[in-house]
Amino acid sequence: MNVFIYDTTLRDGSQSEHISFSLEDKLHLATRFDQAGFHYVEGGWPGSNPKDLLFFQRARRLTWKLARITAFGSTRHAKNRVQKDSNIQALLDAHTTTVTIFGKSWELHVRKALGIPLTENLKLISESVEFLKDAGKEVIYDAEHFFDGWKARPEYALRTLKAAESAGADFIVLCDTNGGSLPSEIEAGVKAARQAVKGRLGIHAHNDSDTATANSIAAVELGCEMVQGTVNGLGERCGNANLCCIIPVLELKLDHRCLGKEKVRELTALSRYVAEVSNVHLPGNLPFVGSSAFAHKGGIHVSAVLKSPSTYEHLEPETVGNQRRVLISDMSGKSNVVYKARELGWKNDIPPDHLNAVVQKLKQKEYEGFQYEGADASFHLLVQDIADQVPQFFVLEGWQVLVDKNRDGELRSQATIKVRVGDQEEHVIAEGNGPVNALNRALKKSLAPFFPSIDKVHLDDYKVRVIDAHCGTAAKVRVLIESTDGERRWSSVGVSENVLEASWQALVDSVRYHLLQHTERAAAPRRPARKNRR
Amino acid sequence: MNVFIYDTTLRDGSQSEHISFSLEDKLHLATRFDQAGFHYVEGGWPGSNPKDLLFFQRARRLTWKLARITAFGSTRHAKNRVQKDSNIQALLDAHTTTVTIFGKSWELHVRKALGIPLTENLKLISESVEFLKDAGKEVIYDAEHFFDGWKARPEYALRTLKAAESAGADFIVLCDTNGGSLPSEIEAGVKAARQAVKGRLGIHAHNDSDTATANSIAAVELGCEMVQGTVNGLGERCGNANLCCIIPVLELKLDHRCLGKEKVRELTALSRYVAEVSNVHLPGNLPFVGSSAFAHKGGIHVSAVLKSPSTYEHLEPETVGNQRRVLISDMSGKSNVVYKARELGWKNDIPPDHLNAVVQKLKQKEYEGFQYEGADASFHLLVQDIADQVPQFFVLEGWQVLVDKNRDGELRSQATIKVRVGDQEEHVIAEGNGPVNALNRALKKSLAPFFPSIDKVHLDDYKVRVIDAHCGTAAKVRVLIESTDGERRWSSVGVSENVLEASWQALVDSVRYHLLQHTERAAAPRRPARKNRR
Repeated sequence: MNVFIYDTTLRDGSQSEHISFSLEDKLHLATRFDQAGFHYVEGGWPGSNPKDLLFFQRARRLTWKLARITAFGSTRHAKNRVQKDSNIQALLDAHTTTVTIFGKSWELHVRKALGIPLTENLKLISESVEFLKDAGKEVIYDAEHFFDGWKARPEYALRTLKAAESAGADFIVLCDTNGGSLPSEIEAGVKAARQAVKGRLGIHAHNDSDTATANSIAAVELGCEMVQGTVNGLGERCGNANLCCIIPVLELKLDHRCLGKEKVRELTALSRYVAEVSNVHLPGNLPFVGSSAFAHKGGIHVSAVLKSPSTYEHLEPETVGNQRRVLISDMSGKSNVVYKARELGWKNDIPPDHLNAVVQKLKQKEYEGFQYEGADASFHLLVQDIADQVPQFFVLEGWQVLVDKNRDGELRSQATIKVRVGDQEEHVIAEGNGPVNALNRALKKSLAPFFPSIDKVHLDDYKVRVIDAHCGTAAKVRVLIESTDGERRWSSVGVSENVLEASWQALVDSVRYHLLQHTERAAAPRRPARKNRR
Repeated sequence: MNVFIYDTTLRDGSQSEHISFSLEDKLHLATRFDQAGFHYVEGGWPGSNPKDLLFFQRARRLTWKLARITAFGSTRHAKNRVQKDSNIQALLDAHTTTVTIFGKSWELHVRKALGIPLTENLKLISESVEFLKDAGKEVIYDAEHFFDGWKARPEYALRTLKAAESAGADFIVLCDTNGGSLPSEIEAGVKAARQAVKGRLGIHAHNDSDTATANSIAAVELGCEMVQGTVNGLGERCGNANLCCIIPVLELKLDHRCLGKEKVRELTALSRYVAEVSNVHLPGNLPFVGSSAFAHKGGIHVSAVLKSPSTYEHLEPETVGNQRRVLISDMSGKSNVVYKARELGWKNDIPPDHLNAVVQKLKQKEYEGFQYEGADASFHLLVQDIADQVPQFFVLEGWQVLVDKNRDGELRSQATIKVRVGDQEEHVIAEGNGPVNALNRALKKSLAPFFPSIDKVHLDDYKVRVIDAHCGTAAKVRVLIESTDGERRWSSVGVSENVLEASWQALVDSVRYHLLQHTERAAAPRRPARKNRR
């Protein structure tokens, strides 16, 4: 079956906590959704929001490959004639070929929210749909709260659908607005709707019961030809049905056609793009598109997956544009370490007599709170240290960090450090806008005379995690640092009860990794003649 | 129906990326799961991991209310006699009343992973189960990959179940190990299993198709009496079935009995506790227990919900221990602030002439990176500072934090602080196991002579979050501190580029809040006569 994908990220999705799309965001996203092959892209609610009105003006001037940009609104207000209803008028002013209007299917809402007789509500629906059809629009009718309405008073809920159908609606979309329905209830509701009306049906699910994907699939299996949802399941409360989960199930598991298999391969990229624009942290365990969705940690799983991926993968990660990853942890066996080493760009074989030592060291470090999943540089050093392949670039004689705040509230952070390179000592001081920054600057300053390339190394990202959060400030922290020399990026990790010591460990790994990659390690460390640098 | 809840957070859940439980973590979690009313708590895999062996030693010395602590392992290795199998032996050494063993139901795995004839695998299963039954254990048999096996070669998959049953297994748990099955496939598989074996069945689902909740529910509806899953859906790849979603559906929507309704009210607290211990950022939109699960943003929704909650809520948030929230966005008005103040435990009315100032201040602070949702004490102080209701307990003359590391790698952290209370100055020094700990001790030490009750105040939790992770160490951090005086708990927040300054702000708010609650503020600060305390 062909299934129409109707995206409401820009409207229902923008109701998520912490999300606020600018006009430009919305235009970028709509363009991307069009490229993704979505059939309908709901742009907004022009009657409720001036920003959305502007969106439709701008959208009209753009060219769309496939997507129909749709305007969303409600049936006419009970007090207005349909011709004079400002919300309906705003829908016309959006100048889209398609409009979506929602009406009430649940008597509770008709009574409590609208405060009108049940028959009056039927008139609202049929007059509004008819007016928009007369104006030449394709009309998608969203039956709000259909499933709750159907559970409470089935015959009335079905009458609202019939009202929309007789008025000429092109699609009738059954909405589980509160997200409380289970698949069995969805199935019963869709079957009843299927008997009541003849035209095309759709499904609009929310995830409050954690069954939005199952609900959407169940509806399609019973003949619904349109799925409404959002990318990444954005949306109020627990979110709307997640198109990034539903589309792969329909295309790859049930052989329906939505976007076509080629476009499904772009889903992971789409998901991450939307996460960036909406500035939402995407959970790694998001099915299909999450960064952990095909990540393996258990030793048994890893060795099996390396032999035959289908042993622990329900489909090939590439079919949704994702990729396999192997994680390192205290549950890792040798095969994890070998795979990870290769993935991290490790070129040579790890000598068999070192492999056991690496696995042991790794387990011990992870027990102490280290994690190497996001710390490729520290992992490299761990392996090479065991093989005794890292020169001792420098020896720390000591550092000291001083932060003070005076009575005017002024803060000052400074660090001193003394290192020895070969037989030469360097003792420097540096300031920073915080203690870690000061320590970083001091370290670089002390090494730069011996290793000039160190000046190119910059911190790009800095993360702190408390890893045993039940001992007050005596808890351990894990610091992750991402560094760059302008071309390459690498990351390193440190763990300590003391945030500065943890940062120091990560800084040292960052520097050692850089020096190891850099040819200057071949040259004997040498302090060039120069003037007083301090 | 009574449904047994089998928690595998400590074993399968610990396979999540970024999760590594310490031994103490595991013991704390198991205790909490026991309190939560879970029937089975899987402690780990003693045969694969020395940490897990230690867990069972420690667990034996504790008293459990209801939960049966279970040890997990595989059927015997093909090369070993069952009496001599080290993995089976480790299960016995765990000294639990219940053991769970998994065996292969999928011929692909038997051939590729085990590399043995199909009949040989049946022997592995029956001999292992029988041996453990003979040893007096309750045996739960996990049929790994049952659904994939059943799809590939149904009669063989069912024979593996029969092998476990004839050997005496107490539960046969059907596993969707790869998480690729849809509810319709689960239903077909459970029906076939139901016909093949007579005993108790269970379900073990993974979320790779985003249908783990729906799959688990479908299985229960067809008679499975045990649900295996994890709190918050922790677990490898996309995670295991999420008990925090399945339990409310079973108890509140389908009238099965798992924990009892009283315990279901503690689910949100349980979910957040596990998130803290596992140091996992919980998505706000997690169904039932997420912080946004009952949060309303859209204007229409807010006003409707305030009239009649069921208009946009599928169940009462209190039934799962969660709460309704009205969100404050940059368009928030006074009513949102009043609602929020009440939510944070604010008892009195905010005077109308202060309300505008509070709204402005709140918006400015949230813009700077502050968040008051987890910082009730700081919010109280913000409101009362505007109303000028907080006495100036002390004046900071300055502090200084010094951390140094010497050539032997020894670390020392010390803080000095000078405060003025009334006309008296106090200048002290304190050490700590890190800079924040030292600063905290110094602050308390400087104030104790004037406010003796401060000695009772302890830090309970300390969290650091980088809130703008793209400027290296110059990124801002937000520090959240939870404090207790043994009776009450409160939390405070600080934001700065400098982690020590952010910690300082949160420490000061913690102390001020304590003093404000404490009657001693009435007494004039006075420095008692005493000997040299430094």
